[in-house]
Amino acid sequence: MSRIHHLPLHVEFGDCDPAGIVWFPNFFRWFDAGSRRFFVACGVPTWKELEKTTGIIGTPLVDTQARFVRPASYGDEIVVETSIPEWRTKSFVMKHRILRGEELLCECNEVRVFAQRTGADPHAIRAVPIPEDIRALCG
Amino acid sequence: MSRIHHLPLHVEFGDCDPAGIVWFPNFFRWFDAGSRRFFVACGVPTWKELEKTTGIIGTPLVDTQARFVRPASYGDEIVVETSIPEWRTKSFVMKHRILRGEELLCECNEVRVFAQRTGADPHAIRAVPIPEDIRALCG
Amino acid sequence: MSRIHHLPLHVEFGDCDPAGIVWFPNFFRWFDAGSRRFFVACGVPTWKELEKTTGIIGTPLVDTQARFVRPASYGDEIVVETSIPEWRTKSFVMKHRILRGEELLCECNEVRVFAQRTGADPHAIRAVPIPEDIRALCG
Amino acid sequence: MSRIHHLPLHVEFGDCDPAGIVWFPNFFRWFDAGSRRFFVACGVPTWKELEKTTGIIGTPLVDTQARFVRPASYGDEIVVETSIPEWRTKSFVMKHRILRGEELLCECNEVRVFAQRTGADPHAIRAVPIPEDIRALCG
Repeated sequence: MSRIHHLPLHVEFGDCDPAGIVWFPNFFRWFDAGSRRFFVACGVPTWKELEKTTGIIGTPLVDTQARFVRPASYGDEIVVETSIPEWRTKSFVMKHRILRGEELLCECNEVRVFAQRTGADPHAIRAVPIPEDIRALCG
Repeated sequence: MSRIHHLPLHVEFGDCDPAGIVWFPNFFRWFDAGSRRFFVACGVPTWKELEKTTGIIGTPLVDTQARFVRPASYGDEIVVETSIPEWRTKSFVMKHRILRGEELLCECNEVRVFAQRTGADPHAIRAVPIPEDIRALCG
Repeated sequence: MSRIHHLPLHVEFGDCDPAGIVWFPNFFRWFDAGSRRFFVACGVPTWKELEKTTGIIGTPLVDTQARFVRPASYGDEIVVETSIPEWRTKSFVMKHRILRGEELLCECNEVRVFAQRTGADPHAIRAVPIPEDIRALCG
Repeated sequence: MSRIHHLPLHVEFGDCDPAGIVWFPNFFRWFDAGSRRFFVACGVPTWKELEKTTGIIGTPLVDTQARFVRPASYGDEIVVETSIPEWRTKSFVMKHRILRGEELLCECNEVRVFAQRTGADPHAIRAVPIPEDIRALCG
């Protein structure tokens, strides 16, 4: 069983499009916030600290699949519920659900990797095996 | 065979995160721009015009799946290549590929619907059957 | 003396640029959230409700001046402190300060108006005199 | 006389808010793109290259003042016109005007500095005197 992290958010006016509903890239912004905050809650250092000690610069996405069930609008109070249902050798699955009270608004499954630089150019990054200490913290 | 629309974009400094690479929600911003610009290129009126005549307010996402192959960074010149590989009764599949020259950076398959309001509240929207005239324009 | 509203926020990874500090347009995003939340705290209805009864669609900016004192980075806990130091006939001044603990990060003075549509086109809006009931709520 | 750079942009659906007009933080996004593209057009290396040779990480804002004259909406073709009207010892003034054809939509005066790191923490940055070679390139 994975730990589940809950991140409460308020939908702002500027998060919505001319149809008056949340413009969907903002859901990905919130999934990403949920991802980072999950690691913080588990005691994983920030990427800026990890980069100094391990060279790890973050957990870029390899794949993501999201399903949108109901729209949200500004003024809504929502919660991003984040967990890691699966750890693989060089990647892990992160799951997010966004809820408004009991209602599911959307859910997302991401495949992410821990990435390290292989050169000075920002494009030069590669996936590294899941660090055991980070996995243990998230257990 | 679907029409393919090409939208050239320049990756800006502010599109990138502390790792120096594009922060992934921006890819979804660009997929959405590709989607709207595809319809414009086909001669489909803007949503603000369509709302007056048909009540259609846009094409919200039902599902999206994206695969990220290579990172991008600011200064990169990219192209969003958009097509509609499949029309269903009440939804359609939109496909986007983002390329830097010949290199594929990411690709995405979206399921979208045409939505109409069912009430004054922004949350009150529903999918309608694909309008035949819009489909004909996109053919 | 104006009422002061406090909006606590957490700076996210995606709010930061390749220099690792908050990319400044995000401060304007937070000023705007502070503005809307100020009105909510005062009991002013949402713009979607006001549009039905009064035609008012929001409080667009006419002018804004911001001063940036210290950078912020992800993981910082900040507070947006919002007030209305001045009401004029057709506009008002909104002031925001963003603080991290006791430290001032930036401050902003905005001139905003209450706007109404003058036609169906989104470009067709005009400033209206400050509604007395809204001003009274904010007093 | 300063060089003037023109950056053409298309206003996207997702740049607009529930009132159907551009949500103002996006104007600051475009001002910042205009700023970076001005330097590119002058032959100034990217910040990632400059950081390696000079430690300069970019040109953070110290102060900005913007005036909004007319709203924009999606589908509008706009141009960001950028110049540097004034160089000071440790800062410079950057001016942006956003036009739709002949119409001025907004204008902005920014005070920016060239910044260098003073430590590993992203918060640790300081303004440095204007590099003579960069100023010469922009002349």
